[in-house]
Amino acid sequence: MREAYHVELEQLADNLGAMSIQVADAMERATRALLEADLSLAEQVISDDAKVDDARAQCEEQAYALLALQAPVATDLRTVLAAIHAAESLERMGDLALHVAKAARRRHPEPVLPEAVRPYFAEMGEVGVRLARQVEHVIHSKDVEAAKTIESDDDQVDDIHRHLFTVLMDREWPHGVAAAVDVTLLGRFYERYADHAVSVAKRMIFVVTGKMPGYGSDDDI
Amino acid sequence: MREAYHVELEQLADNLGAMSIQVADAMERATRALLEADLSLAEQVISDDAKVDDARAQCEEQAYALLALQAPVATDLRTVLAAIHAAESLERMGDLALHVAKAARRRHPEPVLPEAVRPYFAEMGEVGVRLARQVEHVIHSKDVEAAKTIESDDDQVDDIHRHLFTVLMDREWPHGVAAAVDVTLLGRFYERYADHAVSVAKRMIFVVTGKMPGYGSDDDI
Repeated sequence: MREAYHVELEQLADNLGAMSIQVADAMERATRALLEADLSLAEQVISDDAKVDDARAQCEEQAYALLALQAPVATDLRTVLAAIHAAESLERMGDLALHVAKAARRRHPEPVLPEAVRPYFAEMGEVGVRLARQVEHVIHSKDVEAAKTIESDDDQVDDIHRHLFTVLMDREWPHGVAAAVDVTLLGRFYERYADHAVSVAKRMIFVVTGKMPGYGSDDDI
Repeated sequence: MREAYHVELEQLADNLGAMSIQVADAMERATRALLEADLSLAEQVISDDAKVDDARAQCEEQAYALLALQAPVATDLRTVLAAIHAAESLERMGDLALHVAKAARRRHPEPVLPEAVRPYFAEMGEVGVRLARQVEHVIHSKDVEAAKTIESDDDQVDDIHRHLFTVLMDREWPHGVAAAVDVTLLGRFYERYADHAVSVAKRMIFVVTGKMPGYGSDDDI
């Protein structure tokens, strides 16, 4: 039974890893759709989101079966609970990529972003996608140091996000209110996407070390 | 042991109920701080948020202990897992109330909101607080019908939130970009707060009926 248990736990980790890659790809495509006003790419992200939702439901079912049939304790129990949280965070990351894609679709064929702020979004997208890929690595490796780099990379997203506000709040912002509203929401989506990656990383640190690196608000607005 | 188990589960439900009331109070105060530019009320919400974080950590510890020591199955297992999710959602609701309070503090003594949009926020605040209180009722009663009214009340918040966008996007919006950015973010905070209440309600429906009323994106942007 212990043997079967570890095989199932391994499968759960594989599924979470696959989800991380799914949401990394979704955010990569959504960002390209946003920056290049690419409607078909946006549509693809929008229709693929159901797969992320299914993957999450499947992970939860697996975790539920593990708990019910194997009644794990100690680190094994922590691992299963971390997996449940990870699945939730990853699904939310998928939703946020979906929101970016929907914004691209809503304004198509117009670009959503004024030229001046596009580099910020290109960078937040790049870092966000990198974070999701690091999450996949952390899920498989349980590498605490790699999990910690996710936290520091998130600081980069927070910095860009904060800077975006100074750009928006500048009295000289020439792009009007509608563009400011879009930029505000989109900035928030990228920031939350990165926050969720951090949240998964923290859970993994908890699994390995038994210590949770701090609760509380993980977004900085 | 089964007896002890149900006593512990009852305590966990009590703690979640208390958290619901904490975050209802937080949002009530944060909304008043926002509408009345009341700095001391905003400060109170900000300093009280740590208590919500502690309550969440405590709920998770209780749930963890229940799983490790009692190895529940079937409905009991579902209930404990729903409790873990509920604690997470409630903590997030506390964070969102915190964000509202911080916005009120950031602009003090200036009001954050232009006069014209204040009624929308008064209403979103009122409905949000009512939802959090209904969550408390649902946690204790496991009343599926009450859980369903949370979903329909959330539609009200979504409607106001959508309407807010049409107000913002109006070419005649006379309040400038900075106010539009604040209104955009604050609207999102209220909408997410209500979404999390729905998420807890859905989990409770799952506990009672064994059927999850739909995954996927629960916010409508």
